[in-house]
Amino acid sequence: MEYYSNYISKLIEQLTNLPGIGSKSAGRLAYYILNMNVEDVNLLADTIKEARANVRYCKECFTLSDSEVCPICANPNRNHKVIMVVENTRDLAAYEKTGKFDGVYHVLHGAISPMAGVFAEDIKLKELIVRLEKDVDEVIIATNSSVEGETTAMYISKLLKPTGIKISRIASGVPVGGDLENIDEVTLLRALEGRTEL
Amino acid sequence: MEYYSNYISKLIEQLTNLPGIGSKSAGRLAYYILNMNVEDVNLLADTIKEARANVRYCKECFTLSDSEVCPICANPNRNHKVIMVVENTRDLAAYEKTGKFDGVYHVLHGAISPMAGVFAEDIKLKELIVRLEKDVDEVIIATNSSVEGETTAMYISKLLKPTGIKISRIASGVPVGGDLENIDEVTLLRALEGRTEL
Repeated sequence: MEYYSNYISKLIEQLTNLPGIGSKSAGRLAYYILNMNVEDVNLLADTIKEARANVRYCKECFTLSDSEVCPICANPNRNHKVIMVVENTRDLAAYEKTGKFDGVYHVLHGAISPMAGVFAEDIKLKELIVRLEKDVDEVIIATNSSVEGETTAMYISKLLKPTGIKISRIASGVPVGGDLENIDEVTLLRALEGRTEL
Repeated sequence: MEYYSNYISKLIEQLTNLPGIGSKSAGRLAYYILNMNVEDVNLLADTIKEARANVRYCKECFTLSDSEVCPICANPNRNHKVIMVVENTRDLAAYEKTGKFDGVYHVLHGAISPMAGVFAEDIKLKELIVRLEKDVDEVIIATNSSVEGETTAMYISKLLKPTGIKISRIASGVPVGGDLENIDEVTLLRALEGRTEL
């Protein structure tokens, strides 16, 4: 492309690698970035690098965290005997925004999806089992109500049955096929209240 | 936000500063970036920095360029006596993609919009006048067919009238209210062919 500089072409190429950004959006973003102050651009780039370099998995719940143990797991006022299992950190954030759940979380980083080549051993399930060796009263399964999320919920419930720990599933107040993070807080709370034992 | 790490919060904040990216998209992007390889993340960040650090305005046409003079202005096979005036580099790219325009460009970096506080002196108009001291046969005004683009076209045509240089406007084959970059090549070419003298 003679009409675009190499730097712009490379920038557009990098941006189109990101999810939900097509070549047109990438062009618009690149053009915007090139018209920003140098300081602001460097801040953006450094923030990206630093976030990736410093964010790690919490060694307890495996959410993305700045510290070895995330603030939720490190909080003695949370009920560490109730573990809510979610697919990812954004789903954790969705429940945290309701401000009404005082237990802790377990982040699976995915859901079982044989079609996509994601099996039980590819998500943080072994790590959940290890946590149940401590004193746990209830495991609330809050995976999405998609096919993968339901499959994962069923798998976990069968896996944990022998432990005798109470296992529950958030109610199907959550619309079928929806992603947790897009759902309003009232619906999220109704789903939590209406959870049924598996 | 206790549930997000500081690094993630900062990253989301930076990403929401970009056009067309709301807090939900920013969260999705941030999460995606944090799950990328460190090398890929560094490449993304470095590409952003390098593009901003190295891209400058072509000293002839003011398009975004890697070099002091852009490849189009430096090309002796282009007709340097025909200048197409566009609002920005993406509009230039839209006409370049047709492969049928062999003249050169002049990039205004904006359009006159008193409502938005953009006046004639805020866009690269003085620079266009300077270029007309050389031997120029025609100035084709290819600003968008929005209110701002039409205003700019009228302003330029009045400004250049005394020079006696032929001034034309791309035909209104371009849908009113549309942005040049979103228009198909056939329509762009029809608009070029049907240009009328002002």
